[in-house]
Amino acid sequence: MTTFVSKLANALGAGAVLIDPADMAKYVRDWSGNETGKALCVVRPANTAEVSLVMAAAYAAGIAIVPQSGNTGLAGGSIPDNSGTAIVLSLERMNKIREISASARTMTVEAGCVLAKLHETVEAQGLFFPLNFGAKGSCMIGGNLATNAGGSNVVRYGNTRELCLGIEVVLPDGRVMDLLSGLRKNNTGYDLRDLFIGSEGTLGIITAATMKLYPLPKARATAIVAVGSLADALSVLNRVQAESGGAVEAFEIMPDAFLRQAARHKPDLLQPFRDLPRYGVMIEIAATSDADATSDADGVVPIAAILQRAAEAALEDGLIQDALFAASEAQRLEIWKLREAALEVTNSVATKIGFDISLPLERIHDFVAETQAMVDRSVRGASLDPLGHLGDGNLHLGIWCEPDADAEAFKAKAAEMKNAVLDLLVKNGGSFSAEHGIGSHKLGEMRTYKDAVALDVMRAIKAALDPKNMMNPGRTIPSGN
Amino acid sequence: MTTFVSKLANALGAGAVLIDPADMAKYVRDWSGNETGKALCVVRPANTAEVSLVMAAAYAAGIAIVPQSGNTGLAGGSIPDNSGTAIVLSLERMNKIREISASARTMTVEAGCVLAKLHETVEAQGLFFPLNFGAKGSCMIGGNLATNAGGSNVVRYGNTRELCLGIEVVLPDGRVMDLLSGLRKNNTGYDLRDLFIGSEGTLGIITAATMKLYPLPKARATAIVAVGSLADALSVLNRVQAESGGAVEAFEIMPDAFLRQAARHKPDLLQPFRDLPRYGVMIEIAATSDADATSDADGVVPIAAILQRAAEAALEDGLIQDALFAASEAQRLEIWKLREAALEVTNSVATKIGFDISLPLERIHDFVAETQAMVDRSVRGASLDPLGHLGDGNLHLGIWCEPDADAEAFKAKAAEMKNAVLDLLVKNGGSFSAEHGIGSHKLGEMRTYKDAVALDVMRAIKAALDPKNMMNPGRTIPSGN
Repeated sequence: MTTFVSKLANALGAGAVLIDPADMAKYVRDWSGNETGKALCVVRPANTAEVSLVMAAAYAAGIAIVPQSGNTGLAGGSIPDNSGTAIVLSLERMNKIREISASARTMTVEAGCVLAKLHETVEAQGLFFPLNFGAKGSCMIGGNLATNAGGSNVVRYGNTRELCLGIEVVLPDGRVMDLLSGLRKNNTGYDLRDLFIGSEGTLGIITAATMKLYPLPKARATAIVAVGSLADALSVLNRVQAESGGAVEAFEIMPDAFLRQAARHKPDLLQPFRDLPRYGVMIEIAATSDADATSDADGVVPIAAILQRAAEAALEDGLIQDALFAASEAQRLEIWKLREAALEVTNSVATKIGFDISLPLERIHDFVAETQAMVDRSVRGASLDPLGHLGDGNLHLGIWCEPDADAEAFKAKAAEMKNAVLDLLVKNGGSFSAEHGIGSHKLGEMRTYKDAVALDVMRAIKAALDPKNMMNPGRTIPSGN
Repeated sequence: MTTFVSKLANALGAGAVLIDPADMAKYVRDWSGNETGKALCVVRPANTAEVSLVMAAAYAAGIAIVPQSGNTGLAGGSIPDNSGTAIVLSLERMNKIREISASARTMTVEAGCVLAKLHETVEAQGLFFPLNFGAKGSCMIGGNLATNAGGSNVVRYGNTRELCLGIEVVLPDGRVMDLLSGLRKNNTGYDLRDLFIGSEGTLGIITAATMKLYPLPKARATAIVAVGSLADALSVLNRVQAESGGAVEAFEIMPDAFLRQAARHKPDLLQPFRDLPRYGVMIEIAATSDADATSDADGVVPIAAILQRAAEAALEDGLIQDALFAASEAQRLEIWKLREAALEVTNSVATKIGFDISLPLERIHDFVAETQAMVDRSVRGASLDPLGHLGDGNLHLGIWCEPDADAEAFKAKAAEMKNAVLDLLVKNGGSFSAEHGIGSHKLGEMRTYKDAVALDVMRAIKAALDPKNMMNPGRTIPSGN
C-alpha cells in the first residue's frame, strides 16, 4: 500500500478504501464485461466533505481520479485505463435523498442514488421523476448527470440536463462549488450547471443535484403497432401528438431484426405480432388532467380512447397494419419489458457493429434507406437494426451479422461499414453521439467530426479548470494534434 | 478617424461604420435614456464573415468590443462605458431568417432578427415561437440569447435557453464556432451552447441560432381574477394546472400598487375591477389538442370551459373575489396590454427602487410579507409592487414612493431598504437576478451573494476564452479581490 493510499484509509476509514484486486474488480470492469482497467485503489467517500478531502489530496499528489457511480455507461467513460495509476472515486455511498419538496416539485439527491429507487420514493408521494431506461435498477443519478443521459421519456420531458435545476460540484483541487438551487429562473452569471452536466467527470465531480419532479400521470395508454416504414411511423407520431395535445411519453421503434432476435434469444418476451412487420412501434401517452383520466359512463378512459381513435384512423389510412393495446398494467409492463430488453438482445448477437446516433426527424427515413442499401452492398445476409427513441430522432443503430451470413466477410467489412454510416450521418445533419456520450470509445469520431473550433474551446476550458489534467484523463477530449 | 476605424470602413463599406456622435447616439444610450456611454465607433456588419473580420481586427489591435442587438436590456450590459475606447458591434443588419423547417419545428435565425417579426413569420405558417415580453417589437434574438431572456410564457415553454437547440458564435479572436444544429439529442462534448447563452457577450458573439418552434395553440382562454394573497394566487395556479393538464401559458401577478398607478398614469388601459383587489392575476391557458379547441353543440370551447370551471370553484372556495373573462380576441389583447404596460407604468413612478428576483414558489408569500413589514417600518406611505411572473417564482419587485409619501425620507432609506430586500431574498433561497442578467448594474450583488468558488470558475473560463479581456469588459463578472 503506498503512503498516499494509507493516508486516505486513515482519513476515511479502512472500509472506504479498497486495494484488494478482488474487491476492486467490479469497479474496473465496464458493464459489458469486455473492458477492464487497473486502479491504484477504489475510494468510496460517504459525503461531500470526504470527496473534497480525497480530491485535494490527489490533486496535491498529482494522482488522477476516475469518478464512478453506477458504472453502467456505454462509452467506456467510467473505468480507469490500464496504467494502474488512477484512483476510482465511487459515489455509491453518497446515496441520500437530502430533500423532497412536493409543493415546489423538486428533490435534492446525492450522486449515488439509484434511479429506480428515486422513482419508487417519489411515486409513493404522488410525484413522478421521468428519467427512464433499462439500466434504472443500477445506474445512479451522478452518472446520469455526468453523461446527460436520455432514455424513453425524453420526447416529453427532455434529457437529464432539462430535468436538473442545480448541482453541487467538487472541483479538481477539492473546492466545493454550491450551485444547488430549486429556482426555475436564475440568471446570475455563466451557466456552470450545464457545463458540468455532460462533461463526463473531466472537469470535476457532481456530488448532488436538485432535480425537477412532475405530477404522477393520472392514467396511461400504451400500445404496440406494426408499421411498414419510418416515414409512416413519423406520420403516426405527429397524429398522436396532435390528437393528444402533446401527451406522447414514449415512441419507441423496434425493427424486424430486433423482434426476430428477441423471439430467438428470449422467447418468453412478448411476441406482439403474428406476421413480423418491418417495424413495431411502442406508443405510450399519459393524461395529466383529471378529465383525461376519468372513465365516462361507458367505462371508457378518455386518454385510452384518444390512442384507440388515432390507431383506428391510422389503420384505415394504411399507415399501420396491426395494433396491440395494453388492457392492463401487466400487459403494459410486458410491452415495456420487450423494449427494455434491447441491450440484452443486442448483446446476444455475436458479430455486429453499433451506433448511438441522432438525426433531424425529417432525414431519418432517407438515412436508414441509404444505410440499408450500403449494408446490402457490403455483406450478404447482414441486417440493419435501427432501434430507438424515434420521437427524439435517436437511433441505437445496429448492423448485425445474421446466423446465415458470413461472419468473416462481415468482420472484414466492419470498419468500412462504420465509416460509411458516419459519412451518411454527417451528410444528413446527424450526430455521432446522441445520448451515450464520448468516454473513451468515441474519441476518434470527436477528432474527425466535431467542429475544430469547438474542440479548441473544450481544450481551453479543460486546461483552465483542470490544469494538471487529473480528472478522468484521456476521456471526452481527443488528444491534441 | 483613427487608422483602425478607417480600415474597418474600407473593409465593410462606409455605411457599416458610424463615427458621427449623432449617428452613434442611440447605440450608446440605454433603453431608459438614463445611462449613456461613449464608443470609438459603431460597426454594423452584415454577415458572420464580417463579424469575424471585425473581431479579428479588434483583437489584433487590442480594442474592446461591446456586442449589441436590440439594446433593450435592463441591466446595463449592452452599452459601452465612458472611456470611448470600445467599439459597439451592432448585429441589427444580421436579420435574416436562414431557414424555417415546419416538419422539424425549428428555425435558424440571425442575431439581429426582431422578436415580434419572428412571431409574425412563423405564425403565418401555423407555428408558434413562445418567447414573449413587452420589448418584443424592438428586442432581437441575439440579445435574448445573450441574456437568457425570460418573459410571460416561461411557465410552459422555458427561458430562451430551453428554446435554443444550437448556436453560431464568433470568438474574441474572430474564429467562427459552428454549433448550429436542429437535433434534440446531441451529446458530443461540453455544452458550449449553454455556456455562451446568458454570458452577456463577455465570451464571444452569438451570430445565429436554431430555435425550437411549437404548433400554434389551437385556442386560448384568458382571464384576470382578483385575489387577496399570494398564497391564494398559488393555490389558484395549482388548481388550473391540474384541471387543464398543465396548459397554463401565463400566470401574471399585478398588485394593487400597480393597478392604481396604471389607472392614474394611463387611464385608457383596462381597469378590470370596480373594487381594487390586493392582487389582480392574469391567467392564460391554451389548447394544443383539437378536442380542447373545438366548440361543442352549445358553442362552448372546452379550454374556455376549463378556465371558467376552475374560476367558479375558486370563487366558491373564497380563493378569488372577482373574475373577468376575455370574451373576444380584442378583450384578450386588452388584458395583455395592461400587463405589458408594466415597464412604462413603473417608469412613471418618480422615486422608487426595483428588483428582478426569483424565489422558490413556497417561499414567495412569506418573503413578500416580510418585505412589506420592512418597507412599512422604513418609510410611511411607501408601497410594495410585487409584480411579475408568479408561475416561475419571478417577481419584478418595486418599492415605490407614493405621491403622499416623503420622497426625501424615501431616498435617505433607499440603500438600506435595498440591502434589507437582498438579505431577505438570500434567507428565503432566492436569486438577485431572475431574468434580466448582471450587466453593469448587478456587479455588487455578484460580489456579495454569488458562490465564491463559482465566481472563480467564471473568471477562469473568461481568462481562457477571452485572454485579452476584449469582450464586453467590466460586465457580468465583478473585478477580482
